[in-house]
Amino acid sequence: MPNNMVGFRSCCWPLLLPLLVFHVAAGYEYTVNYVTVPVDHFSFYSDELFELKYLTNDTYWDVQNGPIFFYCGNEDRIENFAENTGFMWEIAEEFKALIVFAEHRYYGESIPFGGNPGLSEMGYLTSQQALADFVDLIKYLSAEPSGKRSNPVIAFGGSYGGMLAAWFRMKYPAVVQGAVASSAPIWQFTGMTPCNDFYKVVTSVFRQAGAECALTISKSWEVIDNVTSTGSGSDWLYKNWELCKTLEDDDDVQDLKSWAAEVYVALSMVNYPYEANFLAPLPANPIKEVCKSMTNHLEDNETLLKSVFDGLSVYFNYTGAARCLDISSVYPPGMDAWNYQACTEMIMPFCTKGGDDDMFEPSPWDFDAYAESCELMYGVRPTTDLMEKVYGGKHIRAASNIIFSNGMLDPWSSGGVLKSVSSTVRAFLIPDAAHHLDLRASNPNDPKSVIQARKHIKNWIRGWILEYRYRN
Amino acid sequence: MPNNMVGFRSCCWPLLLPLLVFHVAAGYEYTVNYVTVPVDHFSFYSDELFELKYLTNDTYWDVQNGPIFFYCGNEDRIENFAENTGFMWEIAEEFKALIVFAEHRYYGESIPFGGNPGLSEMGYLTSQQALADFVDLIKYLSAEPSGKRSNPVIAFGGSYGGMLAAWFRMKYPAVVQGAVASSAPIWQFTGMTPCNDFYKVVTSVFRQAGAECALTISKSWEVIDNVTSTGSGSDWLYKNWELCKTLEDDDDVQDLKSWAAEVYVALSMVNYPYEANFLAPLPANPIKEVCKSMTNHLEDNETLLKSVFDGLSVYFNYTGAARCLDISSVYPPGMDAWNYQACTEMIMPFCTKGGDDDMFEPSPWDFDAYAESCELMYGVRPTTDLMEKVYGGKHIRAASNIIFSNGMLDPWSSGGVLKSVSSTVRAFLIPDAAHHLDLRASNPNDPKSVIQARKHIKNWIRGWILEYRYRN
Repeated sequence: MPNNMVGFRSCCWPLLLPLLVFHVAAGYEYTVNYVTVPVDHFSFYSDELFELKYLTNDTYWDVQNGPIFFYCGNEDRIENFAENTGFMWEIAEEFKALIVFAEHRYYGESIPFGGNPGLSEMGYLTSQQALADFVDLIKYLSAEPSGKRSNPVIAFGGSYGGMLAAWFRMKYPAVVQGAVASSAPIWQFTGMTPCNDFYKVVTSVFRQAGAECALTISKSWEVIDNVTSTGSGSDWLYKNWELCKTLEDDDDVQDLKSWAAEVYVALSMVNYPYEANFLAPLPANPIKEVCKSMTNHLEDNETLLKSVFDGLSVYFNYTGAARCLDISSVYPPGMDAWNYQACTEMIMPFCTKGGDDDMFEPSPWDFDAYAESCELMYGVRPTTDLMEKVYGGKHIRAASNIIFSNGMLDPWSSGGVLKSVSSTVRAFLIPDAAHHLDLRASNPNDPKSVIQARKHIKNWIRGWILEYRYRN
Repeated sequence: MPNNMVGFRSCCWPLLLPLLVFHVAAGYEYTVNYVTVPVDHFSFYSDELFELKYLTNDTYWDVQNGPIFFYCGNEDRIENFAENTGFMWEIAEEFKALIVFAEHRYYGESIPFGGNPGLSEMGYLTSQQALADFVDLIKYLSAEPSGKRSNPVIAFGGSYGGMLAAWFRMKYPAVVQGAVASSAPIWQFTGMTPCNDFYKVVTSVFRQAGAECALTISKSWEVIDNVTSTGSGSDWLYKNWELCKTLEDDDDVQDLKSWAAEVYVALSMVNYPYEANFLAPLPANPIKEVCKSMTNHLEDNETLLKSVFDGLSVYFNYTGAARCLDISSVYPPGMDAWNYQACTEMIMPFCTKGGDDDMFEPSPWDFDAYAESCELMYGVRPTTDLMEKVYGGKHIRAASNIIFSNGMLDPWSSGGVLKSVSSTVRAFLIPDAAHHLDLRASNPNDPKSVIQARKHIKNWIRGWILEYRYRN
């Protein structure tokens, strides 16, 4: 697959967009609010301001003493996170908490410069500026209209939002008492994690679903190349895979393979134990479904490709509504802002090695090519060490009160904190969970491990609140 | 005194400028270096760079394992700190340390925008940008030209430099293993310390030197007003105080009183137990000398004012070289950059109450007037809560490995951390010391308490280095 496509993958994008559907289904009620914050928190060069959107629900809040449950919005409109972080809603009553979902700058409605920033004005889209927005919002919420109040703040976040939650506690421990960082790949940066670990996890999930399944996929790349090496073969594939467009040249074939590879990645992120509707409607345990047809990698080319197509159909056509297979994208449109972040701060090296390592075609991490495409697109030249300098990389022992939870079925666990760092910076591994399943609403099909993890997380939150009361 | 003058006081300015004299006397040897850093570390709006100056001495450095002793430069050219932080030089051999003195952006030679920033370009002068400069410099110094190296970094700083050292450890614990923050008034901000505490300390130092001394000064303001209420009285004062300029109106009289008040403040900062040459050459224990003549506040007006003049002469004319008393300033020129900081981040409320509280004329803290003058001068409107939001205010329990040392004779101790916050964030009180005496070179006249404090600090540094070795 092209490196730039891999590199620019949004850290949790697949989780978000289609959840608009859930907006109605889940029916969480919130007030929509806005707070005015500076575009630049770190210098006095510009005094530009903008409106940051945030959602609140104070149904259960004990205004004087109840905690503030603060979701650190990530790379999408904030409603999508409100609708897909059921855990916060479910425990709010017990804790008498105010629920807050804060939108990330440059996403949703929270876009500076009148909602239409120029290229250079995109420069204020950084994780540190976003955290400073959150500080301002919390200070605003904690203002004391009448008498002294005592509201500990607990930060929550999944994926990039989980990274923000962890960094929030690290950088502003006076503002945030503790952080629940779910599926937060804070170590998915240069020099911290081997670049093919991500794809190794994807592969291992498919291997668990069936050894033959991973072998079939592994074999399929070469078979696609072989079959499409002739015009009639390309035509055969176009028809049998029900493609929307014919395969005209090698680039089209490459696009097709990239699309399939991205689908395998997306599947492993959303491999939940119950039916869900993300990028596409999916059955429970979708990888198991996908693998049902991929049972023998020693089949002849056409049989093998048909079985692969049957598997992929689970992803793109579970409902049977698709008229043809559109390989133009796995993820929904509208990710420009994340692409900018991927070219400035979020330089995450990815690579595949094939063979025994993973079920993908070998593709090295090529920073120079990556940097060049960033320069072309945004006029920015990425560096490799910024995030380490800012957030400390692997040296986070001085931090405290952070839970890093990771589902072992989630490829992003490759860049996560999988071992407790200290007595107060804890790692929870959830064997049977995909991408931040623990933050989602409880479901009858939830595995025991995620139910257990949620109990642990609640206990830690309780401890942080007690610690806050003791010291304030 | 006018509030703006009080407010804009540089947090440790009096300590610095005249020490150029010591440059030769102390004879510390260093290499002058420059590192290229971004003007803006926190966004991608501008890609402007500049050269940050730093001084090094590697005479005793164990390159593979020795620590880096890193002085966080504050509001002056860096040479002055190198020459006046003898403690670092004296312990470098024992620790096999590299000595680094890093200049603060917008001071000395480290001025962005070709050394001549426009008013809006001053906007990148912030403590957070300065800390990010320091991170870049340390990463640069820690680069591994050959093999793996292991160099723990210990941050040092006095006054505003001490605030930076403490904040450096708080914000970048992966970069800095521990911080020695001497006379660092990190709580001299709005809502953290009563605005007259600073002047209470000044007063108490004068009271300790002699109860009559403080009473005489206390009385003098009213006496100056009385005497100058007539033309002949003003003339008398002009002659007897050997003023360079006649007193034409009430503003001149106010300026005279402000100058005297500032001299008392300056004296209490540099009230060292040995002869030194700061703003002016001074004897050992200068306040004791000043108070020798101020022995009876019940004298008649002219006698009292003569005795006050004799006291002040210790400050402005110890050598007898001054031809007349110039009240235009207590502090040397060239503080523009600090004034800008005082109008943006460093909003430190000061006030005096007079009476039993302090020996000064009552003068309330008037934020609105202060903000207005900032807006006039720099087009910036200060806020009161920025530093608390950024650095946590009084809630610094999550920090670790910081020593806050404070001399009890130093008025800046009023905004310092005087009580240990946790087992690793320690406060050392040094009863007989003025402004960061502990960081200065040892002197035969040093009180026992400062010798003891230096021993403690060395032990803590040793502990931090051991901890670093254990974990790396």
